[in-house]
Amino acid sequence: MKNIIGDHLQVTIFGESHGAAIGGVIDGLPAGFKIDWKQVENQMKKRQGINSISTKRFEEDKVEVLSGYFNDATCGTPLAFIIRNNDTHSRDYESTKGIMRPSHADYVAHIKYNGFEDYRGGGHFSGRLTAPIVAAGSIAMQLLDKYNIKIGTHILKCNDFIDDTFSGDEKLLAKQIDDVNEMAFAMLNKTKAQACISFIEEVATKGDSVGGILQSAIINVPCGVGEPFFHSLESRISHYLFSVPGLKSVSFGIGAKFADGYGSELNDELYYDHRVKTKSNNNGGINGGISNGMPIIIESVIKPTPSIYKQQNSINIDTQKNVKLNIKGRHDPAIFHRARVVVDSMIALAIIDAMMEFKGINSMQEEGEK
Amino acid sequence: MKNIIGDHLQVTIFGESHGAAIGGVIDGLPAGFKIDWKQVENQMKKRQGINSISTKRFEEDKVEVLSGYFNDATCGTPLAFIIRNNDTHSRDYESTKGIMRPSHADYVAHIKYNGFEDYRGGGHFSGRLTAPIVAAGSIAMQLLDKYNIKIGTHILKCNDFIDDTFSGDEKLLAKQIDDVNEMAFAMLNKTKAQACISFIEEVATKGDSVGGILQSAIINVPCGVGEPFFHSLESRISHYLFSVPGLKSVSFGIGAKFADGYGSELNDELYYDHRVKTKSNNNGGINGGISNGMPIIIESVIKPTPSIYKQQNSINIDTQKNVKLNIKGRHDPAIFHRARVVVDSMIALAIIDAMMEFKGINSMQEEGEK
Amino acid sequence: MKNIIGDHLQVTIFGESHGAAIGGVIDGLPAGFKIDWKQVENQMKKRQGINSISTKRFEEDKVEVLSGYFNDATCGTPLAFIIRNNDTHSRDYESTKGIMRPSHADYVAHIKYNGFEDYRGGGHFSGRLTAPIVAAGSIAMQLLDKYNIKIGTHILKCNDFIDDTFSGDEKLLAKQIDDVNEMAFAMLNKTKAQACISFIEEVATKGDSVGGILQSAIINVPCGVGEPFFHSLESRISHYLFSVPGLKSVSFGIGAKFADGYGSELNDELYYDHRVKTKSNNNGGINGGISNGMPIIIESVIKPTPSIYKQQNSINIDTQKNVKLNIKGRHDPAIFHRARVVVDSMIALAIIDAMMEFKGINSMQEEGEK
Amino acid sequence: MKNIIGDHLQVTIFGESHGAAIGGVIDGLPAGFKIDWKQVENQMKKRQGINSISTKRFEEDKVEVLSGYFNDATCGTPLAFIIRNNDTHSRDYESTKGIMRPSHADYVAHIKYNGFEDYRGGGHFSGRLTAPIVAAGSIAMQLLDKYNIKIGTHILKCNDFIDDTFSGDEKLLAKQIDDVNEMAFAMLNKTKAQACISFIEEVATKGDSVGGILQSAIINVPCGVGEPFFHSLESRISHYLFSVPGLKSVSFGIGAKFADGYGSELNDELYYDHRVKTKSNNNGGINGGISNGMPIIIESVIKPTPSIYKQQNSINIDTQKNVKLNIKGRHDPAIFHRARVVVDSMIALAIIDAMMEFKGINSMQEEGEK
Repeated sequence: MKNIIGDHLQVTIFGESHGAAIGGVIDGLPAGFKIDWKQVENQMKKRQGINSISTKRFEEDKVEVLSGYFNDATCGTPLAFIIRNNDTHSRDYESTKGIMRPSHADYVAHIKYNGFEDYRGGGHFSGRLTAPIVAAGSIAMQLLDKYNIKIGTHILKCNDFIDDTFSGDEKLLAKQIDDVNEMAFAMLNKTKAQACISFIEEVATKGDSVGGILQSAIINVPCGVGEPFFHSLESRISHYLFSVPGLKSVSFGIGAKFADGYGSELNDELYYDHRVKTKSNNNGGINGGISNGMPIIIESVIKPTPSIYKQQNSINIDTQKNVKLNIKGRHDPAIFHRARVVVDSMIALAIIDAMMEFKGINSMQEEGEK
Repeated sequence: MKNIIGDHLQVTIFGESHGAAIGGVIDGLPAGFKIDWKQVENQMKKRQGINSISTKRFEEDKVEVLSGYFNDATCGTPLAFIIRNNDTHSRDYESTKGIMRPSHADYVAHIKYNGFEDYRGGGHFSGRLTAPIVAAGSIAMQLLDKYNIKIGTHILKCNDFIDDTFSGDEKLLAKQIDDVNEMAFAMLNKTKAQACISFIEEVATKGDSVGGILQSAIINVPCGVGEPFFHSLESRISHYLFSVPGLKSVSFGIGAKFADGYGSELNDELYYDHRVKTKSNNNGGINGGISNGMPIIIESVIKPTPSIYKQQNSINIDTQKNVKLNIKGRHDPAIFHRARVVVDSMIALAIIDAMMEFKGINSMQEEGEK
Repeated sequence: MKNIIGDHLQVTIFGESHGAAIGGVIDGLPAGFKIDWKQVENQMKKRQGINSISTKRFEEDKVEVLSGYFNDATCGTPLAFIIRNNDTHSRDYESTKGIMRPSHADYVAHIKYNGFEDYRGGGHFSGRLTAPIVAAGSIAMQLLDKYNIKIGTHILKCNDFIDDTFSGDEKLLAKQIDDVNEMAFAMLNKTKAQACISFIEEVATKGDSVGGILQSAIINVPCGVGEPFFHSLESRISHYLFSVPGLKSVSFGIGAKFADGYGSELNDELYYDHRVKTKSNNNGGINGGISNGMPIIIESVIKPTPSIYKQQNSINIDTQKNVKLNIKGRHDPAIFHRARVVVDSMIALAIIDAMMEFKGINSMQEEGEK
Repeated sequence: MKNIIGDHLQVTIFGESHGAAIGGVIDGLPAGFKIDWKQVENQMKKRQGINSISTKRFEEDKVEVLSGYFNDATCGTPLAFIIRNNDTHSRDYESTKGIMRPSHADYVAHIKYNGFEDYRGGGHFSGRLTAPIVAAGSIAMQLLDKYNIKIGTHILKCNDFIDDTFSGDEKLLAKQIDDVNEMAFAMLNKTKAQACISFIEEVATKGDSVGGILQSAIINVPCGVGEPFFHSLESRISHYLFSVPGLKSVSFGIGAKFADGYGSELNDELYYDHRVKTKSNNNGGINGGISNGMPIIIESVIKPTPSIYKQQNSINIDTQKNVKLNIKGRHDPAIFHRARVVVDSMIALAIIDAMMEFKGINSMQEEGEK
């Protein structure tokens, strides 16, 4: 499998940044599900980021459904959709053809595809391909709503700007998830959010870029989802997350801090409080690869946008010479704040896939033909 | 898929800690490959760890081949093998049946399998199941040898003990990989290694446990291996790695440090030096999900062994009461130094799977009928 | 997997007969492959059948490519395409909504999708969905051309009209394959072809329908393609073929005649004639699930079109009553002569998938950067 | 995937005819299922065939369970088992090494595996590998029992001996299924059964072999199981069936007879009789790739055993010369009557896999913690 993911809800994405259209196919949706398209649209907008620190590519990013949706409900057959590429400035790229942008996929694509890659705007490797992921993810989120499963992601860190962490209290966490899902720039601490935006704006004026760390929480996943070893819930979620462009690290629970402490401090003790809970949640809701009913906590690291306006050293693959590169065009000084929406989407797709195995497709279908 | 992994080299593992045998099936091996069984045995031994800080379970861990190997070479058909469980003290577990060990899989297994799990010694979730993984992984490493691909892992950090990092110089790195593969306790800095062992011994005397961070390097993976998005090399490697018990974080290249710096500092500039190289390797050998020919660098975090001898709070699932737990039996004060071998094995399995797609099975077969 | 097929070349289809568009995504194509779109168009036309015995739905069936094709060659990324539905008479179906057409998928779709299926024109189950299959198949055929692998299918039998069989002589067979691929109505025996067409025209005037048997041959598949047991070449080819609507039987070689004769008559004796050949080819080119280098011979049975103009008994699922049904609209008196093109396409997709495993993707890519 | 089959219940087989052991791994079993091992044993015995017309290989074929079964119930983890090879006469094969038996897999195996295949007794291609299939299949049958789904297969035809067909009456069919499952040589018509056995005995005395046609029926599969197109129930069942050695044709319903009649005769009219039924069942219980609730009817053709005692022409692959071959050793004059048990097993595995998708694993688990 290459551009298809999922064992039960199978998502295919296709397209190039400057081609006719990008899009996706979602196969395995239960029949009779009424999609809230307004919510899909909201997610698509959120993905575009806030104006002052995002590229000025004016795409409507309208999701046009081609199949699988009839009489305002899913049919149970593949839901295919496209998103047209309107605002393509292909000429920006012709002048730098052959020059491989550092830390981009230009060089690997050139080798992998023997020089036949669509090099305009990163082609298939463009961040634009996250648009169909967000469309699919927002449908997955609506399916998860049926089980009361909620996902939220905030910006934990960018440079010296460190946000509060998600709360260990389940009620408070539920509220925080609702809150961050309303935010354009998702930091729990609003003062820091403002300061961080200013910082990124400043970085932009210097033609530079920065990265960040995202923290995600998923609540109400029942105990028992996932498998031991090869298809642990961590394996499956990380498989989805490392599909997000620029994402370089995935941790569950306290992640690297497990190397600092002792078992006696870090074990999550169990107790009864109506249901089984753990006192701490250092393991981030997963033991032995299987959900334990506690919130699933994930950290993802997003690298700085590799497109910067400062001159860089690189190569021209056509002339086989070392060259100086000055990137033009429109580029974000940071993508982590937009990647948040993609991370949420990939998590939603991973979790719904695992839930479908757990519940069976028939349990997910609405009553038909009323 | 549950206990099977791989698209091309498919590995199945089975078994419970106190059952008749554990084992595995490796399907998709090229025919005519002569396995160095001595090397397999060495890896199995390395997995058992060094005496002073590892459990005293005396298993020979002998790999008995049942099929797929004939006249001292692979047949191209499934290679099945078993490892018998000899030294099983099942009675150790009967007295604590129903008591869920914190941060272990006991509780999730109980819920997932409706109380039918084999609870003795963690059953299928036992670290013992990493033995067939190491057997399969060491065969994968031998296949990778054909392409000159080498893998090595050292202990980067345990508590305050921080090892040197792998070198950015490719020649030196190759030597370091050879070195760590000879080590019983894999720290590049020998002084620190000794101090760290002493520290773990001390932790053991207190009945406590500690975690650590492993750093792995893979060299000579050609440019072009992996896929964009859903089956990025990072997705695939992390999928394998998060199968390792107790592993809670996977990072590529500089990982979390991407959140600290600027694109202008962290981009890996390209240049020609006989072949295409990058000046820095912050991305850890992977761009856009595809190998770029530079060393692949990975960090994995392993949590402290959840089995400790200090009293813990927990629940008895049979009586549905909160209880105090005192774990008995044989337990490691740390598993990261043994997990290193499992991490190497999982990486080897991930990389050979990707290489098989890249090269095709026929390119991997030896000439027959000499 | 539901609407996705293939381990290496993965084909997704989507769409409903009366929706906005039908289409497909082909993932796993080698980069740098120049598709002959004229040939694709020819196959699309051939699928529409000959006028006198095919429905009068006037669709251009134009394949619009959305992605994966750049500068007149494949990019190595997913090739997505759509075929618009223009000539949709949806009102034909409203009057019979709820009435389940015998031997169609109406009833099973209604149950499976809880009444949310798109019932217009069979929805996703429409024969129209074979259009994207033919588009994908004709690209697969062009890839197979690189290996000199050719596929041809003729009408072996319809009622009392029995065609000559494919020749056992390899040279003559190659010519026959070329011939049938040029034919609009593929019978080797032209006299019988004309008589059979007349027969079907007569059947049409009676408002009835007929079925037929197709015989396919694939030449130049090298020895060694396929797997023992679970993924035998027969398993894989039949998996693809039973996706063809109305196809109810798949046989390899002499099929049912194996029950009539003796091993001493039917075994295919081996001999050297430059390469290894078999004297007879009763096994149809496959032994032990693996190609033996001889032509692969397959028979497929296609049932009569279930849509007939004669009154039938059926049920109305909305009123839950037994009813009389008089089907209106446009329907073929036979589909086997059109299904031939779909059968060829599915075989091509099955064989290229197996060849990709055999050869590896890199062996299939053209040299780039001219 | 090579030696692994199933999306939900994944079965792996391994082994060679003259190796240490053959066996299998069944992954995905629900936890808490009590296997009736006596029933497994019965199926294993039935597979060995009746004395007068079956080989005299005296294997106990005892299924030794290694994992996944604890306290007399499945654990939910992989159930691995082995069957030892005791009665191996390897020397029988040394004298004919290099001589490729016609219509066997010897030649394709030699090419595919570059001469490294285990050639003794057909190695991995031996019919002996159907033993683990039957073991897995008989467990699948027991799972299907929970849904009241029953499978039965009888010998429809061998040469001129033609059995009665399964009844169209559902009650009578249920009884016939019970009956054939009790039979050692499964013909509904006992007179013909006796005559057919005598015929095969006579064939055996001549050193020859014969093939046959099997007819299978599956009852009580609910409506809605299967998928349109690529994973039609026919696709999935045929994929499994074409894994059976020597099986060369699979038909659903009336199969080839669809080419003889008219739509007006052959359409299966629907009517209400408490539930929705069809008057005829020419489609064999499947429309549009999905079960319609009627009995599923399948015909499979099994070729004559390729091992015969008459002299045959063949090649010696070592000397690259044409040679005369006289097969020695123990061989069946017919395998179809034994293959019946394998066909039942493969159908059971196919249906349970589809049912698991339909129902979800959780619906299949027994209540735990009694």
